[in-house]
Amino acid sequence: MNAEIVCIGTELLMGELTDSNSAWIAGRLPPLGVKLQWVSIVGDDLPQLTSAFRQGLQRSEVIFTTGGLGPTQDDLTREAVAAAFGETPAVQEAVVERLRAYFAARGAEMPPHNIKQAWLIPSAQFLDNPNGTAPGWWAERDGRRIICLPGPPGEMQAIFRNEVEPRLRELATGEITLTRNIKTMGMSEGAVDEVMAEYFGRDNPYLGIYSKADGIHLRIIARAADEAAARALLAPVEAAIHQRLAAHIWGYDDETPERAVAESLRARGRSLAVMEFPTGGYLTNAITEAADAPGLFRGGLVARDAAAMAAGGVPAETLRRYGLVSQATANEMAQAIRQRLQADYGIGITGSPGPGELEGQPMGLAYVALAGPQSAQELELRVPPRRITIKRRISNQALIELRKLIEAGG
Amino acid sequence: MNAEIVCIGTELLMGELTDSNSAWIAGRLPPLGVKLQWVSIVGDDLPQLTSAFRQGLQRSEVIFTTGGLGPTQDDLTREAVAAAFGETPAVQEAVVERLRAYFAARGAEMPPHNIKQAWLIPSAQFLDNPNGTAPGWWAERDGRRIICLPGPPGEMQAIFRNEVEPRLRELATGEITLTRNIKTMGMSEGAVDEVMAEYFGRDNPYLGIYSKADGIHLRIIARAADEAAARALLAPVEAAIHQRLAAHIWGYDDETPERAVAESLRARGRSLAVMEFPTGGYLTNAITEAADAPGLFRGGLVARDAAAMAAGGVPAETLRRYGLVSQATANEMAQAIRQRLQADYGIGITGSPGPGELEGQPMGLAYVALAGPQSAQELELRVPPRRITIKRRISNQALIELRKLIEAGG
Repeated sequence: MNAEIVCIGTELLMGELTDSNSAWIAGRLPPLGVKLQWVSIVGDDLPQLTSAFRQGLQRSEVIFTTGGLGPTQDDLTREAVAAAFGETPAVQEAVVERLRAYFAARGAEMPPHNIKQAWLIPSAQFLDNPNGTAPGWWAERDGRRIICLPGPPGEMQAIFRNEVEPRLRELATGEITLTRNIKTMGMSEGAVDEVMAEYFGRDNPYLGIYSKADGIHLRIIARAADEAAARALLAPVEAAIHQRLAAHIWGYDDETPERAVAESLRARGRSLAVMEFPTGGYLTNAITEAADAPGLFRGGLVARDAAAMAAGGVPAETLRRYGLVSQATANEMAQAIRQRLQADYGIGITGSPGPGELEGQPMGLAYVALAGPQSAQELELRVPPRRITIKRRISNQALIELRKLIEAGG
Repeated sequence: MNAEIVCIGTELLMGELTDSNSAWIAGRLPPLGVKLQWVSIVGDDLPQLTSAFRQGLQRSEVIFTTGGLGPTQDDLTREAVAAAFGETPAVQEAVVERLRAYFAARGAEMPPHNIKQAWLIPSAQFLDNPNGTAPGWWAERDGRRIICLPGPPGEMQAIFRNEVEPRLRELATGEITLTRNIKTMGMSEGAVDEVMAEYFGRDNPYLGIYSKADGIHLRIIARAADEAAARALLAPVEAAIHQRLAAHIWGYDDETPERAVAESLRARGRSLAVMEFPTGGYLTNAITEAADAPGLFRGGLVARDAAAMAAGGVPAETLRRYGLVSQATANEMAQAIRQRLQADYGIGITGSPGPGELEGQPMGLAYVALAGPQSAQELELRVPPRRITIKRRISNQALIELRKLIEAGG
């Protein structure tokens, strides 16, 4: 089943807002057997919208739209779908009642222009929106569908998950696509490429290689008539990756380094504390995104100079003798924060964060120390000298190594 | 001048990569007098690409393309432009030499398939790429242009700034658009809307209102034949906003709360330290994005429990008596971190970060304390109970208030 997405909103064309909806939808279509072949972003302009829908209906069996379902004069998605299908919208009284109730529950009267959100054309059905006033539309005629979703990602995603995905799954008759993402750390892209060479260049299963801030990812894509057949294609490639790269694999699919660490801590009832410098709070912020259960993560100190490190418990003698940018200082950071915040594990990261050199050390050089109840570990890293790279790469590598240490009971 | 953007790459349609190039280009076109009317994302497929270009040439005077300029068989932008213009590419020997030199400088031989990057059609000129091997193309015939840029944002943006923007500026004959973004904090969207009511609903100058994590933004858009005329339209609206909302304006255009604070600290030779809890490192990480000069930002402690706060210098007595989630604790956090890290200003933030309640307090409640050499300030905030909202809104509000305090010499 061929599909396209039409994202609607003049603010998208003015650069005021970046479309993230199309990438989100795109990522969910392959396992449903839906092949996305085109994405368009158009403004709040009725002739253009109508033309986008007419074009789309000629080449695709499904058009997803996002945006333009609000109550204002600029919200023209319903009008354009009606025009493309040659139908006329009529007000649905049941939905008007629901809208009135929605506003009443918030102590307000329904503004008169919200009545548009109760419109429907004969070929369409409503898609229930649990998070807002704008219901979606599933319009279908002659085997062609326009599925209209609101622009706010929270509303769009809920409707897609609850209403659209189940119906698309029933419709799927052609090939489906399975993907598996395998994440490695510790080998270069070239080395991974060489080890897996014989699997690249095939069309199905397809193997792709991607260099990311959390390591080298391998992505297997398999297409087949059903899930079992796709799995049978995918499995041998995954097995080969395991056999050849096992020591370097740290995660799969949506896994992140911080979630992997949070999960290991939770499973073993352990806790963590961090003292960081060149990563500037990125590591601590990432951990609090994942480890929100009480007791897992005690806290983090972001120390930006020797005085702050000393205040956090790093011996002044170490700082004097080895400098800020040294493995010895990283080791003391990990031990000090672990003890001060009474955590089982400590991470210490120092380095040269840029801009420019620090203590004669190049931007991007970092020393990482991991300290556990049983053991400790040292890492020297050199990452490309860009601020975001430094923050992400060093943080990710520290987390992935820590996870190994926790899993080994260190 | 009407324009559209065609973003090229099957990985964009698979949801593996999110297009950020089109929003970046979109944001730079209005001041050049270029009106973006369509964005398409298409795969690495020659017939589809050619069809996208042919369609685009009918409705737009400029098509920008991103991606598909690499050396592989999947990189088909050059082929599709040639097909849309009905021309044949030929190898340019001078560029072959440059490519060979590029690889030689990296100790490698040029792979044979890179020869594609030296192709040119008669209607096109190269656009120099300082950051990679793929030169761009400026193809032009009968007053229609296809401007081909590489996909990696660093390469695309450099070519756009160096080569494309100056040429577009020369071409601009129609209206140009000026925008001005004015950022406020401390009034609700409804209140701002009411105060500025008479300015909304006009077409030119247009006034828009947007609710963001760093407050309510007002955006003025003015279109005119030249910059002076556009400025003359824009100025009275900006003056009215100043007159009515002066006390609440904290920034303009691309300004962020953390850059505003960093700038104030720098201008006055002051320093800052932070102790945060519900914001989980977001605040510290944001500050280190902006305040990278040594001495401005001493550091931050992210304390996730009472023990970590006590280790950071918050008196155990305060924590016992008032609890973790209290204004008294926030005040002690600000004072303690200011003293421990020897900073002029301290921010302390405590609260209920969720999920669920903490000490019977609802997720999203926060207490902020600002401590300076002369004065101190308290803030109680209630933000929507979503993790990212809590992190962003509380952090931004703390920074914006701190900036006022610094500017007041507090």
